[in-house]
Amino acid sequence: MSTNRLESFSDGVLAVAITLLVLNITPPSPQAPGTLVHKLLAQWPAYAAYVTSFTTIGIIWINHHAMIGRLREADHAILMLNLLLLLTVAVIPFATSLFATYLKQGQGENLAAGIYGGVFLAMAIAFTTLQHQILMRKASLLKSALPLADRRTILLRSVSGIIPYVVATALAAVTPYATLVVTSALAAYYALPIASGVTVTG
Amino acid sequence: MSTNRLESFSDGVLAVAITLLVLNITPPSPQAPGTLVHKLLAQWPAYAAYVTSFTTIGIIWINHHAMIGRLREADHAILMLNLLLLLTVAVIPFATSLFATYLKQGQGENLAAGIYGGVFLAMAIAFTTLQHQILMRKASLLKSALPLADRRTILLRSVSGIIPYVVATALAAVTPYATLVVTSALAAYYALPIASGVTVTG
Amino acid sequence: MSTNRLESFSDGVLAVAITLLVLNITPPSPQAPGTLVHKLLAQWPAYAAYVTSFTTIGIIWINHHAMIGRLREADHAILMLNLLLLLTVAVIPFATSLFATYLKQGQGENLAAGIYGGVFLAMAIAFTTLQHQILMRKASLLKSALPLADRRTILLRSVSGIIPYVVATALAAVTPYATLVVTSALAAYYALPIASGVTVTG
Amino acid sequence: MSTNRLESFSDGVLAVAITLLVLNITPPSPQAPGTLVHKLLAQWPAYAAYVTSFTTIGIIWINHHAMIGRLREADHAILMLNLLLLLTVAVIPFATSLFATYLKQGQGENLAAGIYGGVFLAMAIAFTTLQHQILMRKASLLKSALPLADRRTILLRSVSGIIPYVVATALAAVTPYATLVVTSALAAYYALPIASGVTVTG
Repeated sequence: MSTNRLESFSDGVLAVAITLLVLNITPPSPQAPGTLVHKLLAQWPAYAAYVTSFTTIGIIWINHHAMIGRLREADHAILMLNLLLLLTVAVIPFATSLFATYLKQGQGENLAAGIYGGVFLAMAIAFTTLQHQILMRKASLLKSALPLADRRTILLRSVSGIIPYVVATALAAVTPYATLVVTSALAAYYALPIASGVTVTG
Repeated sequence: MSTNRLESFSDGVLAVAITLLVLNITPPSPQAPGTLVHKLLAQWPAYAAYVTSFTTIGIIWINHHAMIGRLREADHAILMLNLLLLLTVAVIPFATSLFATYLKQGQGENLAAGIYGGVFLAMAIAFTTLQHQILMRKASLLKSALPLADRRTILLRSVSGIIPYVVATALAAVTPYATLVVTSALAAYYALPIASGVTVTG
Repeated sequence: MSTNRLESFSDGVLAVAITLLVLNITPPSPQAPGTLVHKLLAQWPAYAAYVTSFTTIGIIWINHHAMIGRLREADHAILMLNLLLLLTVAVIPFATSLFATYLKQGQGENLAAGIYGGVFLAMAIAFTTLQHQILMRKASLLKSALPLADRRTILLRSVSGIIPYVVATALAAVTPYATLVVTSALAAYYALPIASGVTVTG
Repeated sequence: MSTNRLESFSDGVLAVAITLLVLNITPPSPQAPGTLVHKLLAQWPAYAAYVTSFTTIGIIWINHHAMIGRLREADHAILMLNLLLLLTVAVIPFATSLFATYLKQGQGENLAAGIYGGVFLAMAIAFTTLQHQILMRKASLLKSALPLADRRTILLRSVSGIIPYVVATALAAVTPYATLVVTSALAAYYALPIASGVTVTG
């Protein structure tokens, strides 16, 4: 299978998932007590989680492009691992909503944060698994031959992109705010010019 | 009509349908009784149905690509049968939600499972009907001439992909869990490396 | 502007709109009285409106492809009229939901049916206006010169596609079921092989 | 990175965001008091905000195409600024819903209007920042060299597109209706033939 339709389908899923995130932010009820400014400010976890998730999916999209761009064609294993990666991304709107809902609840907030970090972690692992499949096991499907050293460098970058999400997920046991700080700092770092080429599992 | 825009529109519908599935998984209400871990675990039918539906749509996408990839151009009948196939896929989020909602209700669970299996069955039949139209009735529209024996082999594979969904739908009358087991086992089987080339009606 | 990105954006909006329609069909509440089979059957207006709207958007997509396929490039007026057409299509999920909600209410059902027919009518008028702009006013932007007689024939077909929606909208004043019968019969007729080349405003 | 997939991902996000807007318009409850015609008319802020937001996103799409169309390839900074632009667009459905919900509430309506205007303002600023990056800082990535004077003219048009949204946002402090009038008048103006080439930050 050529990679054209693989890219267009993946772009579609990523574009829908990143845009659906906004459905988790809803106008406060006019009937609820308090002024609108207070009610909007009380929703800050929703905004923070939104920006973090939006940026992370955006960066995954950029790295996905680079990863698939090296491929000449795809086989069954690549298609299925790509589908697994898309599944982890498609679940992000749910994890984002869960995290934003429970962050300030005083119950379940550690679990919600752990799931939020865990979904990002699963995404990073799925990405790296696909990267490994492409670079190490199906190198004959690459557009142009890459020296083993180069392939190892790219793969190592993907592997090292997993580590901060292990940290973000583990810290959820301490406090959910640590998960928010780590995941949002990561998104900001990868988005800054300094991080060009050193992005989420890319 | 060239098949380019047919593919891009179909990819769009499949990508939106597969991503919309996540809207069926919602955070448990913080006000509901019980701890978050229990409330999340109680939602397991939603997760099981989600993964099954996601994987099944993903596999249909792969097979759709292969089927349309053989075409040089499309005519009115092909466009309309493709639209019918997309309709059955677009209904999957509803059937998934219905199934997950009723699986543990103790009322209506057999009907909900029958509808879940039935929508997959309708999808498999629509896929096979389109496959038959392309390979048997409009062979002149193929990119390259295929011997009748080859066309029959491909079509037979599509026809045989219908059978397990007949089973999954029929078993709903016994217990909805049988439908879940058959449909999820099918999705897992088709996703595994061993199934390369032997996928859902493909 | 080349027509490539015009087509891909239009395909995106049409694909999202046609897939969002399913959000109007929701599982009946398990707490509501009655068996699931009765509760599902009571939702029949939602299914009827769903299939009608899905098919109509699908046919518009086919005709949109043919219309834009004649263009070599697009100018500002064509882009804006295309946006107007997409607006009428994007509103269909709302009109479908409104129609399905009120069909059996015994109040407001004529108005809801009139809006349902009216949105289709607006879509047909927007389509024909764009067709007129392309064929009559911007003929220099066509891929290949078409004799005036041919352009008039195509445009006449688009104009005649408006008439049944005038009827469907007007009959809403008598009974909403007439609107449902006319719009669904139209969708079925255009989808049948006999209608090849004689479709909704195409 | 070539601009093909940048365009297709951006088109996807813009197409999903523009189509999701309709989810903010819901059928009035049949149980609510009053006739359907009155209940529908009472929702007029939702319709006005819908048409304004739909048209504005549509125009941004047109201008985005022109802006990216000048690029031969994209670098990290362009990708990230484009992502920032998409984030501001993806937030429009929320701002639209907030504005429509509070316009007639007698509390919070100025803030809601300020946020509605402010999101459009943020979008115009993100657009202009990206335009500046492309034309002034990464001119070597352009498809064909543009004289500095031409680049300055295009950029000035983008900058001047920011001003009306500053006005629309500031007027929210006086009355939310002023924000509605300015943003909808802008959308109408940019959509009219007279405005060809003088559109929102384009």
